[in-house]
Amino acid sequence: MSLPAASLPETFSAAAVLPPSREAVETVTRALAARFGNRLVTSLAVRQQHGHTLTWIPNQAPDAVVFPQSTEEVSEIVRLCAAHGVPVIAFGTGTSLEGHVNAPFGGVCIDMSQMKRIVAVHAEDLDVVVEAGVTRKELNEHLRDQGLMFPIDPGADASIGGMAATRASGTNAVRYGTMKDNVLALKAVMADGSIVQSSTRARKTSAGYDLTRLLVGSEGTLGIITEVTLKLHGIPEAIAAGVCPFPSVKAACDATILTIQTGLPVARIELLDDVMIRGVNLHAKLGLPETTMLFVEFHGTEAGVAEQSERFGEIAAEYGGGPFEWATKAEDRSKLWQARHDAYWAAKALRPGFDSVATDVCVPISRLAECVEETKRDIEESGLIAPIAGHVGDGNFHTQPLVDLNDKAEVERVQAFIDRLVKRALAMGGTCTGEHGVGQKKIKYLEQEHGPEAVAVMRTIKRALDPQNILNPGKIVVL
Amino acid sequence: MSLPAASLPETFSAAAVLPPSREAVETVTRALAARFGNRLVTSLAVRQQHGHTLTWIPNQAPDAVVFPQSTEEVSEIVRLCAAHGVPVIAFGTGTSLEGHVNAPFGGVCIDMSQMKRIVAVHAEDLDVVVEAGVTRKELNEHLRDQGLMFPIDPGADASIGGMAATRASGTNAVRYGTMKDNVLALKAVMADGSIVQSSTRARKTSAGYDLTRLLVGSEGTLGIITEVTLKLHGIPEAIAAGVCPFPSVKAACDATILTIQTGLPVARIELLDDVMIRGVNLHAKLGLPETTMLFVEFHGTEAGVAEQSERFGEIAAEYGGGPFEWATKAEDRSKLWQARHDAYWAAKALRPGFDSVATDVCVPISRLAECVEETKRDIEESGLIAPIAGHVGDGNFHTQPLVDLNDKAEVERVQAFIDRLVKRALAMGGTCTGEHGVGQKKIKYLEQEHGPEAVAVMRTIKRALDPQNILNPGKIVVL
Repeated sequence: MSLPAASLPETFSAAAVLPPSREAVETVTRALAARFGNRLVTSLAVRQQHGHTLTWIPNQAPDAVVFPQSTEEVSEIVRLCAAHGVPVIAFGTGTSLEGHVNAPFGGVCIDMSQMKRIVAVHAEDLDVVVEAGVTRKELNEHLRDQGLMFPIDPGADASIGGMAATRASGTNAVRYGTMKDNVLALKAVMADGSIVQSSTRARKTSAGYDLTRLLVGSEGTLGIITEVTLKLHGIPEAIAAGVCPFPSVKAACDATILTIQTGLPVARIELLDDVMIRGVNLHAKLGLPETTMLFVEFHGTEAGVAEQSERFGEIAAEYGGGPFEWATKAEDRSKLWQARHDAYWAAKALRPGFDSVATDVCVPISRLAECVEETKRDIEESGLIAPIAGHVGDGNFHTQPLVDLNDKAEVERVQAFIDRLVKRALAMGGTCTGEHGVGQKKIKYLEQEHGPEAVAVMRTIKRALDPQNILNPGKIVVL
Repeated sequence: MSLPAASLPETFSAAAVLPPSREAVETVTRALAARFGNRLVTSLAVRQQHGHTLTWIPNQAPDAVVFPQSTEEVSEIVRLCAAHGVPVIAFGTGTSLEGHVNAPFGGVCIDMSQMKRIVAVHAEDLDVVVEAGVTRKELNEHLRDQGLMFPIDPGADASIGGMAATRASGTNAVRYGTMKDNVLALKAVMADGSIVQSSTRARKTSAGYDLTRLLVGSEGTLGIITEVTLKLHGIPEAIAAGVCPFPSVKAACDATILTIQTGLPVARIELLDDVMIRGVNLHAKLGLPETTMLFVEFHGTEAGVAEQSERFGEIAAEYGGGPFEWATKAEDRSKLWQARHDAYWAAKALRPGFDSVATDVCVPISRLAECVEETKRDIEESGLIAPIAGHVGDGNFHTQPLVDLNDKAEVERVQAFIDRLVKRALAMGGTCTGEHGVGQKKIKYLEQEHGPEAVAVMRTIKRALDPQNILNPGKIVVL
């Protein structure tokens, strides 16, 4: 299952991070055990469970896992770790894909799963304050009775803290934005243990540096997010969703591009290629035609949704798409979107027993058709099985090669494919990751994307805010 | 016109910033003159014009003003200033309101007005790349033929660079967001002269720290923005706009709150109180009833706009508002919004010959009615003339006391009023500035709003990215 430890990202510099001494780790662990009792766990199983998530990086277990129940407790833990130079890794649900929560230098994993309070729902202001451990589904469950929803939906039922830390998005981003657009404020514990409230509940502010947006997407390397204030949205009066087959990836992308360009306020527009549809059919026992499909959804008033659906139908027909199949019943819609959200697992159904390497890029939408088509050709030419699914309204798509991690040549072929995918996206004015984040696996692309000057600025910020490099070391930037 | 120099904000610490020596300034000025010829200006008139903008802070002129024509030239200037420890202040159109561009420690003002290239319009991606000196009206003029628009509209015809630097917004923010939501990427010159491209044209990214959002709103203190990539929007197929009188501020606020809470996608919803309407009538020669008014606008399809207008009419009637007067012709709409945008000047018509002190706060919308009402009462009790106008869909409103700056007691009364206004907004979970920024005048409120820990983080970032404190020193954070 695991790559040998020798394949640690080559970008790690031994000099940059000092792994803590055995004594430091033991001192910290003893002190945490005394303070937190059975909320401090050092069993191998639990440590490994926290050190190997949905990534092909080898298991890198922390030395201990602690389960705080308040921001103040997180602060205590960080202070203790800071005093002894021991790394601290925040952990939500462990569903990140690029090695975000692995502990390459050991240290203390802070599992936020016992911080699940919904602190306050301000229905009249359309916002909510939650602790970091609340998951998106738990939050929506809580909100439903009040006619409210939180739309950001990565495939997994991730924690809100983790979603903020990785700048997550999902199928609704084309309409509702990403975490960067939906986090109003954060509470975070900084590297010295100080507790920072990044902003207020005001919808707009120009009161100083945007600490909220600096922390969103910082992957636990600048501060540990303990509480999040989120924008909410009313559950739409009317929802229309459906699936539409297309003769080719290009036709589906072109229909998407026109939809966005004409300003049709589509809430979701998801592409699944023929390979992914085959996986979805296998996994979710659906009988979809095995061709490129768009899954779409419209939110609005009854009249608005009808108007939007009709317009989209015309656009699809222009590119040879159709017939459109509408899921009018709520449970049919749920089944459809559950199938989409389970794409990660559906993909694995295509090559049972193998591992998968999920990755994503995002390009300006005018280049989307070209980028997806070239990528499909590349997959074929590389002899890989790699379904494609994408939040194509944003120009963002995923691919997920299924790989035998024990086959070194295949692993190399996958890595070379991802390198080419990123290079292709960057050449088209895109980014090396639209929503998965950097973690460990995409560090090496940051300079290609941003240039050395911008990465130097990131490094300066990291050094200034975490001079000891104890917050999730070895992720995003290498010191 | 000017306050005595002795009234410099008390928060300035003499030790924090070393004003450059005379020699340093002269060396830099000579070198710039040699390099830039008549694009380096040292005449008193021009320096003063750049050192005193729409604020009641005394004129604080830079030592020289230089007019670069490219990012590389800005980099050259910053490198030179950095080598000699001379402050650099970026200048757009000089329409900021809190002393953002004054030069309390002298130095070199970089006037961006010769950087007006529209680098690339990507109509198919709905984005545009512009140099920092392009103003919002110039941009929209350029875009109109292509059916595109850039909706962010502070009152002034500000430069895009300045709007990004101050996280500006305006009347359309309730629908289209602020600069933070509409800047995709920036090019900026950092304190060491290095040129950073903060991101790509991709709609979404999770590739590292959000340098874009860190620079947006940093008011030239972390880097000098030279180029901006902006999201664009299609000019709506249909626009409906109109004005609606209300019996009280509370009624108008309550109608606004319900509009937002029901998810009506209003594009603009602006409150002008009776005092401001009197000013608008005087300034724009309109004959509006002198009571609280809402100016609203809807964007969408013909059918969508009709539906939204009808719903809004119902909401307004619920609070005793009406009759609604629709401006169906484009020129009537333009006149209406020009009158709104000219509110700053309209306010001054209420007390001709006096100065005005524009300030803003923003609160969660559930507290808006209460905050505006209390503020109106406070204005009356303070014996001030201070009209109120607001982007109330965001909970953001402005007031603009008209003041005799030679009357020390009145100045103190205004300052005490603003202190109370900010305290009131903060107590309601709001911010000390929704869109005007910090500049010099709001530095003292930042700790009240964010707490000392968050301000310490801002200071750490500033120190790390500008260790010499040469970028717009004395703004946002005091070192």
